[in-house]
Amino acid sequence: MLETLKKSVCAANLDLAARGVVIYTWGNVSGLDRDSGLMVIKPSGISYEAMGPEDMVVVDLESGVRVEGKWKPSSDTETHLALYRAFPEIGGITHTHSVYAVAFAQAGMNIPALGTTHADYFYGEIPCTRGLTREEVNGAYEANTGNVLIETMRRETNGVLSVPGAIVRNHGPFSWGRNTAEAVYHAVVLEKIAEMAWKTLWLNPESHMPPYILDRHYFRKHGPHAYYGQDKSGE
Amino acid sequence: MLETLKKSVCAANLDLAARGVVIYTWGNVSGLDRDSGLMVIKPSGISYEAMGPEDMVVVDLESGVRVEGKWKPSSDTETHLALYRAFPEIGGITHTHSVYAVAFAQAGMNIPALGTTHADYFYGEIPCTRGLTREEVNGAYEANTGNVLIETMRRETNGVLSVPGAIVRNHGPFSWGRNTAEAVYHAVVLEKIAEMAWKTLWLNPESHMPPYILDRHYFRKHGPHAYYGQDKSGE
Amino acid sequence: MLETLKKSVCAANLDLAARGVVIYTWGNVSGLDRDSGLMVIKPSGISYEAMGPEDMVVVDLESGVRVEGKWKPSSDTETHLALYRAFPEIGGITHTHSVYAVAFAQAGMNIPALGTTHADYFYGEIPCTRGLTREEVNGAYEANTGNVLIETMRRETNGVLSVPGAIVRNHGPFSWGRNTAEAVYHAVVLEKIAEMAWKTLWLNPESHMPPYILDRHYFRKHGPHAYYGQDKSGE
Amino acid sequence: MLETLKKSVCAANLDLAARGVVIYTWGNVSGLDRDSGLMVIKPSGISYEAMGPEDMVVVDLESGVRVEGKWKPSSDTETHLALYRAFPEIGGITHTHSVYAVAFAQAGMNIPALGTTHADYFYGEIPCTRGLTREEVNGAYEANTGNVLIETMRRETNGVLSVPGAIVRNHGPFSWGRNTAEAVYHAVVLEKIAEMAWKTLWLNPESHMPPYILDRHYFRKHGPHAYYGQDKSGE
Repeated sequence: MLETLKKSVCAANLDLAARGVVIYTWGNVSGLDRDSGLMVIKPSGISYEAMGPEDMVVVDLESGVRVEGKWKPSSDTETHLALYRAFPEIGGITHTHSVYAVAFAQAGMNIPALGTTHADYFYGEIPCTRGLTREEVNGAYEANTGNVLIETMRRETNGVLSVPGAIVRNHGPFSWGRNTAEAVYHAVVLEKIAEMAWKTLWLNPESHMPPYILDRHYFRKHGPHAYYGQDKSGE
Repeated sequence: MLETLKKSVCAANLDLAARGVVIYTWGNVSGLDRDSGLMVIKPSGISYEAMGPEDMVVVDLESGVRVEGKWKPSSDTETHLALYRAFPEIGGITHTHSVYAVAFAQAGMNIPALGTTHADYFYGEIPCTRGLTREEVNGAYEANTGNVLIETMRRETNGVLSVPGAIVRNHGPFSWGRNTAEAVYHAVVLEKIAEMAWKTLWLNPESHMPPYILDRHYFRKHGPHAYYGQDKSGE
Repeated sequence: MLETLKKSVCAANLDLAARGVVIYTWGNVSGLDRDSGLMVIKPSGISYEAMGPEDMVVVDLESGVRVEGKWKPSSDTETHLALYRAFPEIGGITHTHSVYAVAFAQAGMNIPALGTTHADYFYGEIPCTRGLTREEVNGAYEANTGNVLIETMRRETNGVLSVPGAIVRNHGPFSWGRNTAEAVYHAVVLEKIAEMAWKTLWLNPESHMPPYILDRHYFRKHGPHAYYGQDKSGE
Repeated sequence: MLETLKKSVCAANLDLAARGVVIYTWGNVSGLDRDSGLMVIKPSGISYEAMGPEDMVVVDLESGVRVEGKWKPSSDTETHLALYRAFPEIGGITHTHSVYAVAFAQAGMNIPALGTTHADYFYGEIPCTRGLTREEVNGAYEANTGNVLIETMRRETNGVLSVPGAIVRNHGPFSWGRNTAEAVYHAVVLEKIAEMAWKTLWLNPESHMPPYILDRHYFRKHGPHAYYGQDKSGE
């Protein structure tokens, strides 16, 4: 069942470690098959060294029930499910505890858009959610983590694909994309952008970027007038 | 004698270097066999490249006398022994000079609990001991280092397994666990948490985490209601 | 056509990743053959893992037209062309998003000349351009990026080979040299110097270097009285 | 001639790169054979990849004349010679541009003794020299760099082996030891200590270490009462 997606999800988890954004089991990646309504996600707390595609867990998007797999799914499963349900345009989600993104999350600050590296991928600030309330934490915590992300994305961005990541207050970054590979790519980019912003703010706390540079860089890579990269035809 | 434990202790020392928390011989790991009352510890000042299980040193927990091994044990042996004697629940201890943890130790500051990464492993701040007095330093220095750790853990935490590490003023981190692998794991986690806290405090010196998030994250991984990871049955 | 140059340009792009100054496709290198008036440059958005010399793109210096290659050239092609047209002494150009150089670019600050490492390669501050205007950004953006670099180099330096790099406001570093290898070398050096300056300014914001040290170090490596390195005779 | 020393000096230079304290050719190591009065040093500006023991250069300590070798010696040769002449107890010297040590050098600050990592190797602050005067820079620059190091060590320390390194204002670190391996070891340790101090000062600019801890740690590793490491007998 979903063997190709399992391979992608497993490879994506291993890529997180290779790219230096997670240590041990501090991250998780999922992928969604919209046709069957099934999500493939990393098992909970299994070391990356020992993990293969056959260890991935299949969960039903609507019910949240595990439909295949010998392990329990990632403890953040309900957060992933909430995001997939809210945003039909996404097909992959990544969560890490990468250091600079966590620093912004722990400080309760958005990651400001200070340069073209940011503008190439994120059309505006990377928002930090409000903190979850005591009730949200003590209740369905992981689902509520998804809810606060959804609330934040809807209020502060023009869409989840134009700002493919956010940080949860006191926690860390989530990122996404049309598939698992994009979700991981955005996790790595988000961390690098956070590092650049952190190092910039130290030099000049008043740093900012004019909006027309944000527009130009974002739209040279995204949308109908993009001219970065190769045409689909391979040219 | 204790061949399995020697292998674990040797591998744990090498893992410290591979994980980037020590250079040269700047760390030591021990493991305790409670049944026989014997501790296995790294020899003093032997380079990691040349070190094998047969170089580990066996020391009697009660008397502190070396009972096997061709080398002198780590110069921090008395610190390890003091901790094992005080805390029957621990079976492995690690000491490193990892950079961010040392920075907090040299600054004389606790590592504050600012996010869920911290809360997943440490139930509260990672305490920094008071400085040793002139008399403690000039006397049984290594044993007194253990004593100040014991004093700190008893005063500031609910137990050594709920806060599996601390930092010694002007010195650096010690961590522990039920066995050597856990002790090393906590040394690596402690350093990463210290790095996150350092980078967070720069962005916002007033950063903090509500106690209910600390509770939720700690207890979803630890204790009778934990739901992170896999059941013992392998599920 | 230009097979040797294609190999150099391809190898130079890969070297950027190996040296840690770019991730993914965040950089580009070109080389110029002045005799034929042809520039070889990296294709746009092709992953480094898959890239070989045969993927390089050949562009006519004067017209900017692609004369060979199956891919579209780097989106920064017009910036490279503008620099080659303005400065006949350069034969290779590199652009990266290396972190510390980007931090200075995002902060809108020159990289100050604080020590001999800087003086060994850059005869004076590494200038940061002014920000491009809304009109420049919305018009021929990449060519205008070149123009603002040219304007900056002419106003603030004694020549492009004496200060073989600059940073573009809100964007990142460009560097150059007599050939592609030098351009990459200067990209790596510029990033390391930026890191040193960043870490120095934190310790002492008033740091500076007397001009006679700048002179001595620069001219022991460059110009008719240089005595660093080996004579051309092989000695 | 001096084949064993050439191998040591060559290996020591390569170790600098492997340990991450130099990139490209930004460092040099020498070793001295006191019996013959000959120094072996790295050639100037030869890439580490291509360098073998046969490329090392032999220089007469007293006259400074090259007595063997096909290459010109390191441009810092006169600095090394000055130090060997002044301090008969040293047999190896290393110079790097490692980042944190350079930051202190560029800021014109001593590296303070803030913890036991420092105290294990350096008995007191690692001093920063005064800046060289215009006359010293324009004159015999490299010899004068040695002279200012000698002046600093004599004024601020109890001996070059008790503080086996210093930093030159606006330049970077020099370190030494009884042989080349020790000199390189101290270069790596000095950089790590500088990093720890830098990160500590940010948390608490008032950080300091009581002198009795400095004494205890230094003398448990050095001098007649040392008890760290193994006895010479191999025990």
